[in-house]
Amino acid sequence: MSGNKIRRPRPRLARGFRDVSGEDLTARWSMISIVRRVYERYGFIPLETPTVEFADMLGKFIQETGLPTEGIFSFKADQPDWLALRYDLTAPLSRYVAMHRDLPKPFRRYQVGSVFRVEKPGPGRFREFTQFDIDTVGSASMAADAEICCVLCDAFDALGLEGRYVVRVGNRRVLNGVLEAAGVDTKDGGGLVATRVMRCIDKLERLGLSGIEQLLSQGRMDGSGDFTEGAALSDEQARVVIDYLKSQRETRMACCDAQEAIVSGSEEGRRGVNELREIDEFLTAAGYDETKIIFDPTIVRGLTYYTGPVYEASLRDESGKFTSSIAGGGRYDDLIERFTGQKVPATGASIGVDRLLEVLKGADREPERVSARVLVTQMDKTYAKDYVAITAELRRAGIPSELYLGKGNIGKQFKYADDRGIPVAIIAGEDEFAEGLVSVKNLALGKVVSQEVKERSEWLKREETQVTVAREEMLMKVREILKAQHNE
Amino acid sequence: MSGNKIRRPRPRLARGFRDVSGEDLTARWSMISIVRRVYERYGFIPLETPTVEFADMLGKFIQETGLPTEGIFSFKADQPDWLALRYDLTAPLSRYVAMHRDLPKPFRRYQVGSVFRVEKPGPGRFREFTQFDIDTVGSASMAADAEICCVLCDAFDALGLEGRYVVRVGNRRVLNGVLEAAGVDTKDGGGLVATRVMRCIDKLERLGLSGIEQLLSQGRMDGSGDFTEGAALSDEQARVVIDYLKSQRETRMACCDAQEAIVSGSEEGRRGVNELREIDEFLTAAGYDETKIIFDPTIVRGLTYYTGPVYEASLRDESGKFTSSIAGGGRYDDLIERFTGQKVPATGASIGVDRLLEVLKGADREPERVSARVLVTQMDKTYAKDYVAITAELRRAGIPSELYLGKGNIGKQFKYADDRGIPVAIIAGEDEFAEGLVSVKNLALGKVVSQEVKERSEWLKREETQVTVAREEMLMKVREILKAQHNE
Repeated sequence: MSGNKIRRPRPRLARGFRDVSGEDLTARWSMISIVRRVYERYGFIPLETPTVEFADMLGKFIQETGLPTEGIFSFKADQPDWLALRYDLTAPLSRYVAMHRDLPKPFRRYQVGSVFRVEKPGPGRFREFTQFDIDTVGSASMAADAEICCVLCDAFDALGLEGRYVVRVGNRRVLNGVLEAAGVDTKDGGGLVATRVMRCIDKLERLGLSGIEQLLSQGRMDGSGDFTEGAALSDEQARVVIDYLKSQRETRMACCDAQEAIVSGSEEGRRGVNELREIDEFLTAAGYDETKIIFDPTIVRGLTYYTGPVYEASLRDESGKFTSSIAGGGRYDDLIERFTGQKVPATGASIGVDRLLEVLKGADREPERVSARVLVTQMDKTYAKDYVAITAELRRAGIPSELYLGKGNIGKQFKYADDRGIPVAIIAGEDEFAEGLVSVKNLALGKVVSQEVKERSEWLKREETQVTVAREEMLMKVREILKAQHNE
Repeated sequence: MSGNKIRRPRPRLARGFRDVSGEDLTARWSMISIVRRVYERYGFIPLETPTVEFADMLGKFIQETGLPTEGIFSFKADQPDWLALRYDLTAPLSRYVAMHRDLPKPFRRYQVGSVFRVEKPGPGRFREFTQFDIDTVGSASMAADAEICCVLCDAFDALGLEGRYVVRVGNRRVLNGVLEAAGVDTKDGGGLVATRVMRCIDKLERLGLSGIEQLLSQGRMDGSGDFTEGAALSDEQARVVIDYLKSQRETRMACCDAQEAIVSGSEEGRRGVNELREIDEFLTAAGYDETKIIFDPTIVRGLTYYTGPVYEASLRDESGKFTSSIAGGGRYDDLIERFTGQKVPATGASIGVDRLLEVLKGADREPERVSARVLVTQMDKTYAKDYVAITAELRRAGIPSELYLGKGNIGKQFKYADDRGIPVAIIAGEDEFAEGLVSVKNLALGKVVSQEVKERSEWLKREETQVTVAREEMLMKVREILKAQHNE
């Protein structure tokens, strides 16, 4: 870079990406660590797959053109095959299981990490975000599905959310059975009708039952005059679906009975209801009642790969109304078959870490503090070594401590402590060192407008927040102040 | 995917990437958590920058062509600017600091995460690997450099490596001073000579002093007859560099004296030695002697952006010989200037997490166990609900437990427990449930060749490893067995 021609790049983040720091980060780590312990209590073991995979491993690949699909970050390096950043943790798990056919099964694994999507960013929507998944691979038993619901509950309880969430369980087979019972030709178009119906139902919370009824049949005109084409069911067919959506009952068992009445003409539908009945029995045996886990026909989950039970964990406000979704998942018996040709039943769920953190922020949980507790100020640079020694002593005693390393005067140093949230300062100059003393200042007590305190004489006056003690009493005094602050 | 034309992708990892699971992963997490606590004791706060940055933010960008350089994974999404995966954590830190000019300074931050490089993969060399960095931005004080060395020592000590490593400190200014004193024209060619000399010195451990002497002057022919061109110093100049490389002494202070004698004619060189003297004083004040931190003129570090002190932490074998490097860093006062035009002094180091984990694996540290402790077997599927209830009870008691969810007979279930390293099994069938009993089997004791045990009558015989207790005594019995196994 020579003289005149320097082009300085403007420092900036790529679109949809962000920095996370301080307590926001430790709050995330602490959440992950709590949830991890719960997962391990169930025998789930951790896995970390790479950030980068071949695009065809992710299934996000157009077979005709050989090109990756939109929505993922894809690129090439020194090989002809396309690479991509993983967009979820399920596709890499499928690749992993297909690569290790000798894994003891059922294989229970959890994984936490960043996933990447080329989507329009928005408030709280980023192109890199954290997912925290649990999956059980190699078991077709409904006990595996029940277990996923239970472990989600235990995780939320461990995070202090008991009573504020509910896990809602639906079943794709029942929905297919409903369409069959309604006389909708689901075979034709390879599940396209079912997919369209699912997409409609996913809009239920926003549009209400009457909006959905329109969407299921001819279509719907919204307030602005925009028309959305419908799923083209007949009015009668749409009504069967609406009846199904209204089949929620007080108990899981009553809900099964109501659904069975609707799908009795469909073998697939009856099989779905029986799956739910099994799940209900397992949940009851494990001690999870309807305050934690309910059956909810409106839960269908958008992804097409689910084959049976689907789950969604939602927060509820005090009136019982669902506010936001914090986890979701379901059974996907066909995903690994893509590689191996063999059916490998699997079921799992994903916790939306960022959403959950937003919730926990509001839940009066004190975030883990990460700033130092003590700032050792440098009043007189001739004692630089002594300040280093004091700082080392505090650290060795396990008290997170910083030595001020900038150039500012004592006022700037207090300002720095204030900006960083450091509650205690150590101050010593010629006089103190001559007499083997040190001053300990309680910064949190009577917050100092530090910029105004430029003179030694000035701060010496503020005796109420500052004590001078013998050097060997420093640790004791600091601990005393920190303890008092902590208890306030 | 219809009938005949299914092309099944072969499940595979992209070149240079890998999966990590189980104890390998928890060992990493536990290491990170230990080191993190040490960093926080020094007032370093955590930062997480995104995996994806604009390529020009990383400095890996050819100004003339506008294209990213080789060696990084680069790509475009929906914007014209090139994106790239970060290849270290220092460039993103510089971008972050340049974006947040109002950060309280000095800014001490740590960051741990994956970095990505398009390099030839090899044993232990991956294209995605973990770095764990600490940096202090905004302080020109040598106390900041001394602190980085101390925090590295504390981190290694916390990991149980006390006495097995040493932090070695060099200084770029001293090296420049040596060249100046030797009469090498370092101004000409914009530091190219200094860079060539540094590259030579970096090969010292492999080639020895005589090999380096050849490389510094005319060049060197290796055993296979390949000739490497030299740095073109005169023999006399080369000898000054060699003298410098031999200037290590028993104490840091004696080392400074020896180096000062060589560079006395160079202002830059004297400044470098004075920096080392200051660091020595701070280290001594903080209580870190030559058993932990030494001055070593052979430490130069390859990266061109270092401007003053450079550090490298090396493991030593019992004879004192350096084996492998586990951390490295230095002062880089110009890196943030690239964005802002203003000099922002900075210094830091990076721990190579994967290398260190390899070392710790050999250090007799027991890895944190992640498999469940108990397998609840399913001998008779009619009791499926009861098995679920037993598993839930064990989990609620905090004992990591799995319910067997596969289809295998009891022999296969024991085999599963064995494969997964689960030490205790719960067994119950019609008889036990009728009498309110349950059998607890100590799988670790007298390891069962489980495949051979197919019949209930057979395993009933193996009474020495199995006891039948009342259902309400199950927890007590399981705890007793786990405790005994743990103490063995």
